[in-house]
Amino acid sequence: MKLGRFVVDGLDGPVQRICLVVPEQGRVVDLRAAESLRLQAQGATREAALRYASILFPESMSAAIALGQQFLDSAAEAAEMCGDDASLAIDGLRWGPACDPSVVRDGLTFTKHIRQFHERMDKTPASALLDIPGYFKGTPWTVIGHEAEVPWPAQGQRLDYELEIGWVIGKRAHNVTPDNALDHLFGLTIFNDFSARDLQGREFDIGMGPTKSKDFAYGIGPWITTIDEFASLDKIAMSVRVNGEIWGQGDTSEMLWTPQELIAYVSIDDHVQPGDVIGSGTMGNGSALELGRSLNPGDVVELDVAGVGVLRNRIGEKKEGGWWPEKRQPFM
Amino acid sequence: MKLGRFVVDGLDGPVQRICLVVPEQGRVVDLRAAESLRLQAQGATREAALRYASILFPESMSAAIALGQQFLDSAAEAAEMCGDDASLAIDGLRWGPACDPSVVRDGLTFTKHIRQFHERMDKTPASALLDIPGYFKGTPWTVIGHEAEVPWPAQGQRLDYELEIGWVIGKRAHNVTPDNALDHLFGLTIFNDFSARDLQGREFDIGMGPTKSKDFAYGIGPWITTIDEFASLDKIAMSVRVNGEIWGQGDTSEMLWTPQELIAYVSIDDHVQPGDVIGSGTMGNGSALELGRSLNPGDVVELDVAGVGVLRNRIGEKKEGGWWPEKRQPFM
Repeated sequence: MKLGRFVVDGLDGPVQRICLVVPEQGRVVDLRAAESLRLQAQGATREAALRYASILFPESMSAAIALGQQFLDSAAEAAEMCGDDASLAIDGLRWGPACDPSVVRDGLTFTKHIRQFHERMDKTPASALLDIPGYFKGTPWTVIGHEAEVPWPAQGQRLDYELEIGWVIGKRAHNVTPDNALDHLFGLTIFNDFSARDLQGREFDIGMGPTKSKDFAYGIGPWITTIDEFASLDKIAMSVRVNGEIWGQGDTSEMLWTPQELIAYVSIDDHVQPGDVIGSGTMGNGSALELGRSLNPGDVVELDVAGVGVLRNRIGEKKEGGWWPEKRQPFM
Repeated sequence: MKLGRFVVDGLDGPVQRICLVVPEQGRVVDLRAAESLRLQAQGATREAALRYASILFPESMSAAIALGQQFLDSAAEAAEMCGDDASLAIDGLRWGPACDPSVVRDGLTFTKHIRQFHERMDKTPASALLDIPGYFKGTPWTVIGHEAEVPWPAQGQRLDYELEIGWVIGKRAHNVTPDNALDHLFGLTIFNDFSARDLQGREFDIGMGPTKSKDFAYGIGPWITTIDEFASLDKIAMSVRVNGEIWGQGDTSEMLWTPQELIAYVSIDDHVQPGDVIGSGTMGNGSALELGRSLNPGDVVELDVAGVGVLRNRIGEKKEGGWWPEKRQPFM
């Protein structure tokens, strides 16, 4: 099943609607509308049907996923019973981010990327990378969806994409082990960890994790494919195109840490919530940095993940002005 | 005004109640109860009064703060009209975390701490510390309140506290400047950034920010003091006691970056939300590391911040077992 969100204008402003996506038919099903119509056909009043459907299919994908199996069962039933009234053409939809994670987390997994990244950044990889899965946390407030414009980062000059899978959490996970980690996985989406490379080195040196080099845009979408549609997570084909030209391709092999290990590790002492997204880490050749290239305003970046689809974003214009801190005098 | 949250058992499990705290009287006012009684005295039905009061004073402090001036005005009015029916003794309350931030962020501000921290960790401070305010992001799911036990971190041996102020955000902030940053500050709380020092070095080397060395407990409380009660943020007295003995004391002077600059910097490209907490950074001598000491199970840590109060937490027992990743073979 493929599940996403599109945006419509409501009476009080834009609202997100959860939809079932059928790419091969070029259609989506507005699940709230479909469920409401299904209930009314069974004799529910319009008011009661809308109230029930809005609880089952709220604006938040995290809230929907948090309802567990009921969400999936209801989505399947609503879509099956749906006539044309709750179906829309996929073309021309305004997409919302497929997920609204409580926290963005992003791993460092693919050995080819780790090797090439460190070569380009002229850094020696820390031996600690072999001890524990590295991951960083990002703000959830800069998540953008399919076809959304990427705001150019303040003071950044060298903009990059990162080709990743987003592991979408289905159940609360706390201190789980790799053996049962997949029970907590709802599905896969595409994750573009946009990065300002010229800001990243300085933040790396401080050692507190990326801030302004990452917290301007996390692309998540176009939708989620539920985990039952994947026979294996080992060799999922991925590629990235910039302005239609292939800049990188490969698959999910050669992982230093499996998705199971990454989810389990993140859950140690911490709590992972339904709808959270954990970036897989960048695939080898999945960043422009590894090619000695970077992005410009107007560039269109497409990440293609087999079994999910294509996440497309256009890079916005550079901004001038805005406050930036003044350099301090040495105090040591 | 001092605002916090306490926990009571409801029909479906524990619930958080927002309260106005009057420490000098040893009392708190249950604001939802007070508002409901106030409305009923004016002729509202019990059902309507409870419904309205529950919207004004929800479980989430972030949701309450997000209502803006209406929250503060209603709290003042409800507390003023309150008789004994909505008032409780402060002793024996079960405290919830004063805030439920969407993301935990924590700065690096006080020059004495930066100097002493790097000396003890045997590291040279990055020159980038003079270029930009360093801060890291923590998961909001490990926030604990006043009197809550600190869960011992998996695989950690050398546990520490960090004495900090928590800047509590009052209004959404995005690309604000230091000039207007204080308009977005709701108040001050106490922030204890518990840290596993033996895990921290390895995570520092990876460069993606702290994960397991921090994401096991962020102490926030005992309550928030609103910003109007502080004439200045420049010399707020702070101290830390372990098992009743003073281990560190000082004040908020000698900042590399002001709170205004820290808030403004965090808001660049990112969005800061009502109820978010930004740690001030650790005060000089505000960690046991700086003294060559560490914490043991059963230790009681009290952080004292003038104008707020005392945040007290006991350290839990060490845990055995639990999954931990196996070391990988070099691949480069």
